[in-house]
Amino acid sequence: MAADHLLKEELHASISDPALDTMNFLNGITHRYPEAISFAPGRPYDGFFDVEEIFGHIRRYLDHLAENGHSPGEIRDAVFQYGPTHGQIRELIADSLLKDENIDVPPEAIVVTVGCQEAMLLTLRALFASRDDVLLVASPCYVGITGAARLLDIELTPVEERADGLRCADVQAAIRAERARGRRPRALYVVPDHSNPSGVTLSLEARGELLELAAREDVLLLEDSPYRMVSPGRQVPTLKSLDRDRRVVHLGSYSKTLFPGARVGFAVADQVVVDRDGSTGLLVDEITKIKSMVTVNTSALGQAAVGGMLLAADGRTADINVETSRYYGDAMQAILRELDETFPEDERTALGVRWNRPTGGFFLTMDVPFRVDNSALERSAEDYGVIWTPMSYFYPQGGGANCIRLSISYLSQSEITDGVKRLARFIRDETAARVPSQPTRKPTSC
Amino acid sequence: MAADHLLKEELHASISDPALDTMNFLNGITHRYPEAISFAPGRPYDGFFDVEEIFGHIRRYLDHLAENGHSPGEIRDAVFQYGPTHGQIRELIADSLLKDENIDVPPEAIVVTVGCQEAMLLTLRALFASRDDVLLVASPCYVGITGAARLLDIELTPVEERADGLRCADVQAAIRAERARGRRPRALYVVPDHSNPSGVTLSLEARGELLELAAREDVLLLEDSPYRMVSPGRQVPTLKSLDRDRRVVHLGSYSKTLFPGARVGFAVADQVVVDRDGSTGLLVDEITKIKSMVTVNTSALGQAAVGGMLLAADGRTADINVETSRYYGDAMQAILRELDETFPEDERTALGVRWNRPTGGFFLTMDVPFRVDNSALERSAEDYGVIWTPMSYFYPQGGGANCIRLSISYLSQSEITDGVKRLARFIRDETAARVPSQPTRKPTSC
Repeated sequence: MAADHLLKEELHASISDPALDTMNFLNGITHRYPEAISFAPGRPYDGFFDVEEIFGHIRRYLDHLAENGHSPGEIRDAVFQYGPTHGQIRELIADSLLKDENIDVPPEAIVVTVGCQEAMLLTLRALFASRDDVLLVASPCYVGITGAARLLDIELTPVEERADGLRCADVQAAIRAERARGRRPRALYVVPDHSNPSGVTLSLEARGELLELAAREDVLLLEDSPYRMVSPGRQVPTLKSLDRDRRVVHLGSYSKTLFPGARVGFAVADQVVVDRDGSTGLLVDEITKIKSMVTVNTSALGQAAVGGMLLAADGRTADINVETSRYYGDAMQAILRELDETFPEDERTALGVRWNRPTGGFFLTMDVPFRVDNSALERSAEDYGVIWTPMSYFYPQGGGANCIRLSISYLSQSEITDGVKRLARFIRDETAARVPSQPTRKPTSC
Repeated sequence: MAADHLLKEELHASISDPALDTMNFLNGITHRYPEAISFAPGRPYDGFFDVEEIFGHIRRYLDHLAENGHSPGEIRDAVFQYGPTHGQIRELIADSLLKDENIDVPPEAIVVTVGCQEAMLLTLRALFASRDDVLLVASPCYVGITGAARLLDIELTPVEERADGLRCADVQAAIRAERARGRRPRALYVVPDHSNPSGVTLSLEARGELLELAAREDVLLLEDSPYRMVSPGRQVPTLKSLDRDRRVVHLGSYSKTLFPGARVGFAVADQVVVDRDGSTGLLVDEITKIKSMVTVNTSALGQAAVGGMLLAADGRTADINVETSRYYGDAMQAILRELDETFPEDERTALGVRWNRPTGGFFLTMDVPFRVDNSALERSAEDYGVIWTPMSYFYPQGGGANCIRLSISYLSQSEITDGVKRLARFIRDETAARVPSQPTRKPTSC
């Protein structure tokens, strides 16, 4: 009889993705210290959800089908049967993209996915064929894209993100360096608005430069922007709405604007694909083929609920999120105000503490003058009752050792006030204990 | 400015999976000949579905949560928020597996997936790490598993399926041949009951032999059996219920027993995984990590609907499917009766036509004395008004050139009667036209 167990080292390397281990550590901390105030979770605030409404959302979508001439049998099948792999609500999504974002694409350029995560995985799988194809990502970077890349054995090339976001010159240098190594930069993944994890937003000028660069260097931009419509004020236009050369694949999520439980996202991929015989199609069709091997199609019930919500708002998710945008915006202002008050300018400089000032989204980042690792996090939870995320989790090839991510999406204003006080005590004590001789040394920037 | 289009040959090879092209061709035929009777689709009959019931299913699951002490906030989050990656209805699935299948596993050995397709993809990704790891499959084989393998660049080793199913000696020979080539057979994918595409069911004896072989040769069996509970009469026990050595990963689907639109399936993976430091976990935990990079979690609404249906039947999906099993069983008997009457013994022998006699499931296969390809299918649809699936679609490395698959799941008895008459005319004409000098030659078996 052969061994009756499996060796972990013989399983696929993606299960040992360091981001998974660190996220598991973070979840463990959260579980062990339930009374701690947590600046860690990136989940949306759920106080505006109402269970009873879910039935109305689904009903509204079914009524819409009936009003549009679908027979009772077709409506029954729209709920119960296998659906089209490309999805059932592409028209509603296209309508919404035009109204919300001025993204003008036909429904045929859209594939509905099981959340944005599946959209990432499918798009990467379609575009990356050779071991020499590389994906450029910001460093720090959202763990969803690095996980999907590792799952597919796709090589990552990190590009340092500056305080004002990715710089075109840095991206160009990375592309050329990879080419010089004989590799082929295929795409750059970018979260242009209120980025996870750093909270940074790209300027309109930077977006224009990135689009020019993409055309010049023949790479695609994979745009993922889940926080735009839940942020206060006017947003910079999406890369896709500025895209004149079909250089942008827009990866869409309804997890923040509608609700995560639907597991409905999408990809817009209107790039032309040319076959050897000269026949053409769209990239979305190839992504859809890959979806047929991953999930076959997206849950009809999730699509019905999202469809019903889009119908109720006439496609304007911005209208649905007036209250949530204000909520998150107020929370962001609250934490910035608390930080300003808790660390006056003098102390800030003396300690070597600083943070950025995002105009929206869920996250901001803070430099601290000591090493931030899992044991520091454990001390913070145990002794100070406050949890946050080490930024080192988000660096594909190391970095962020002196930086933390703070999320505001899941906390009340009083929790934010209390949490910042706890955080300040932790930072002061840690600074005093760790670097007594260098109170004013400059931290490495995250 | 660089090229403003993508070259198909530079995209990932899985988009050129021949099964996809052929399925697209089949879909095109179905679309172009809407009046034809189609023995092609493998989708479940939908006459028993009722749209209004969907609201009751979801409501029942939410009531269940309330009865089990969940607060209104927890119930709200169970619908709207990100859910646990391993799923929300594992206890209900474990209870159902015990009652339906005598599969006795703890809920912690289960991960809920977006249909069985995601369960396949995740399991393959976890188990296959090296380019030398190979997956054994029957030939012919379900296209879902071959597609998932191609997506992950996993090599397939086909094992010829005989009239009575996979034979242990054939599997063993394939394993040893692969080892001799320096490769590592990791798992065998098997549909033991009323297989898609061949309709074959493995005997109890063959199952015992496969389990012994798996232990002896240190490979896993990936068991996928969606048709058991929708087939009439007593079924042979599942491999998983007979598994004493944790050699079986059971891949579950609710698409045939409940409804496909939920997109809810699962994997049971209670294999022990040992890390270098001696710590242990279950394979399901590693599969769950991979799921976090593919779909994050399965739609809460899909899980709620499935959960509500399981609750209503006290976990016994067999009870839900008394009527459907009879429906499919009657359809299978009807096609066999029509074939027997249409092709009397003498003509059958003279023509060289034969078919198998599945006791359940959706499919049977038929040998014909001429080459079955896309142009034959087009003639059949155009001139005879009948559609079927060339079995060559299901052979990973060629085969089945003289064989067709007939599906009975989506047809009424009168359509079956009429469809068999049309098919007989096609077969007789095709035989007369194609092989006039060899009317009694023996076809190659599928």
